[in-house]
Amino acid sequence: MKCRVCKCHVVIELRQHNSAFCAEHFLAFCRRQVERAVDKFDMFRPDDKILVAVSGGKDSLALWDMLVELGYDADGLVIGLGIGEYSEASTEFARTFARDRGLTLHEYSLDAEHGFTVPSAAQATKRVPCSSCGLSKRHIFDSVATSGGYDVIVTGHNLDDEAAVLFGNVSRWQREYLARQSPVLPAANGFPRKAKPLVRLGEREMAAYCVLSNIEYVVEECPMAAGNKHLEYKGLLNDMEVASPGAKHAFYFGFLDRAADLFASAQDETSGSAEDVLSPCSVCGSPSSNDICSFCKLVSLAAVPVEVEITARPDMIDK
Amino acid sequence: MKCRVCKCHVVIELRQHNSAFCAEHFLAFCRRQVERAVDKFDMFRPDDKILVAVSGGKDSLALWDMLVELGYDADGLVIGLGIGEYSEASTEFARTFARDRGLTLHEYSLDAEHGFTVPSAAQATKRVPCSSCGLSKRHIFDSVATSGGYDVIVTGHNLDDEAAVLFGNVSRWQREYLARQSPVLPAANGFPRKAKPLVRLGEREMAAYCVLSNIEYVVEECPMAAGNKHLEYKGLLNDMEVASPGAKHAFYFGFLDRAADLFASAQDETSGSAEDVLSPCSVCGSPSSNDICSFCKLVSLAAVPVEVEITARPDMIDK
Repeated sequence: MKCRVCKCHVVIELRQHNSAFCAEHFLAFCRRQVERAVDKFDMFRPDDKILVAVSGGKDSLALWDMLVELGYDADGLVIGLGIGEYSEASTEFARTFARDRGLTLHEYSLDAEHGFTVPSAAQATKRVPCSSCGLSKRHIFDSVATSGGYDVIVTGHNLDDEAAVLFGNVSRWQREYLARQSPVLPAANGFPRKAKPLVRLGEREMAAYCVLSNIEYVVEECPMAAGNKHLEYKGLLNDMEVASPGAKHAFYFGFLDRAADLFASAQDETSGSAEDVLSPCSVCGSPSSNDICSFCKLVSLAAVPVEVEITARPDMIDK
Repeated sequence: MKCRVCKCHVVIELRQHNSAFCAEHFLAFCRRQVERAVDKFDMFRPDDKILVAVSGGKDSLALWDMLVELGYDADGLVIGLGIGEYSEASTEFARTFARDRGLTLHEYSLDAEHGFTVPSAAQATKRVPCSSCGLSKRHIFDSVATSGGYDVIVTGHNLDDEAAVLFGNVSRWQREYLARQSPVLPAANGFPRKAKPLVRLGEREMAAYCVLSNIEYVVEECPMAAGNKHLEYKGLLNDMEVASPGAKHAFYFGFLDRAADLFASAQDETSGSAEDVLSPCSVCGSPSSNDICSFCKLVSLAAVPVEVEITARPDMIDK
């Protein structure tokens, strides 16, 4: 088997594309897939200022690398989530990546800024850790993007991630989630635009991209995510992909092409308007449908207790 | 573990219902599930004349048994498909079942009536055997139901079947199929009403129902279906069900409750009207969108060749 482009030695075969590539043309193939996603879904323009949500894993670092290679103006933001050695290692990979390439990496520590970590928040809220983790990341990425004047936040969600989320939403036919499942969400209600430029590439391709680009990344999955549904759905989709190469792509892009509009229209009719009415959170000023936003409620619940806060906060939580 | 109803010895546990039953109350549970499906989807009324599509397998025989036990007026129709010993054994199980209970079983032989079998049709059409098999069964059930004055045709499709079909349609987001996926299709365009009263029961329950009711049935899967997509999707759904009991039910009924209407409305808008314009097939008189219906085209292609037909038919096929 030979590289589809130059006929030289193959390093990777992509059954779903009925193709194989040498290292150089595989990296070019990946960047082309990113460009195609950016163009097709009008994710951002060449002069947009991009904030990359960096975890230190293969997807976000490969994405950042590709955007820079493609000539985009992209800075990174890594959040210290306080998940023990996993978070420390992740942050260190992000730092090394940025330093080696002379890129700007913003750092934000949940513990230093707000006095809690993902594990302590899970304990305080008595909910799965992924819940406060997701909430915190969304809030901080939104805040930093807004205050830093970024046009768009990009995340490293790949085809495997998006297909698994879609699978979960379809398994219970959650109309409100299906209505919002898109690789780009426009800026609305004071929240910045968000985009997922890796939707045309899978986990295997992203791991190969990092290896072939000498990008070092945290290989372990988050220790707090073990056994979650998302991983179960990924496993089922992998079984489908083995039986029918291209099945994940057909499932995810088939939804975008032929079903997403139905759910989005139905949601618009239900809510009366595509835009919710939001007002600034009375604590942090972020757009919120309540007086105090969900993140500030989490902070009041999960932060290391201080005498005055313990007496002051419960009322706010129940509002 | 004890029977949920009478606290006696349990013969089956239903994890998805968090229940267990003795033989007597399991059979009653199954019949209740059929009644619930019939009522909820308005499949038929107590005085309707029902034609059961009988294959000789567990589902159709259990269904026929339950309908008779519930007091419905239900006759059977078995089609000799000519798939070697499998078809002979299937038909024999149907005959024995009907004879033992004094029920009316219509018999129809593809070979005797039309001069072809499912294997020979597959060879003649160069398509998968399931294609001409499904087409032939639909045509013959429709014809016999119409000429026999039946109000509704019922088939033994169970929850596993319907969830697998839905999974297949969703995996490629086939809107036109999703728009029609319902446990009951009303009479329309000259075709009789069709219903699937087993949608609340799975394969495992149907096998148990037959064993506990002393119904003998053909255990083998159709030898021509091996390796088809439908069986692959059933396997994936079984994996989901093991991880989350009730997942199949949530997937299938979630679709009916929260998504089916969106696809049906979209299809109505596309086609301009819910009803197609059909006219009688010039050969057999069945409603058709072409001058000659698909079944008569199949007959002309697959029937044992006769001189005059070979010269006469090719033009008709290409119309």
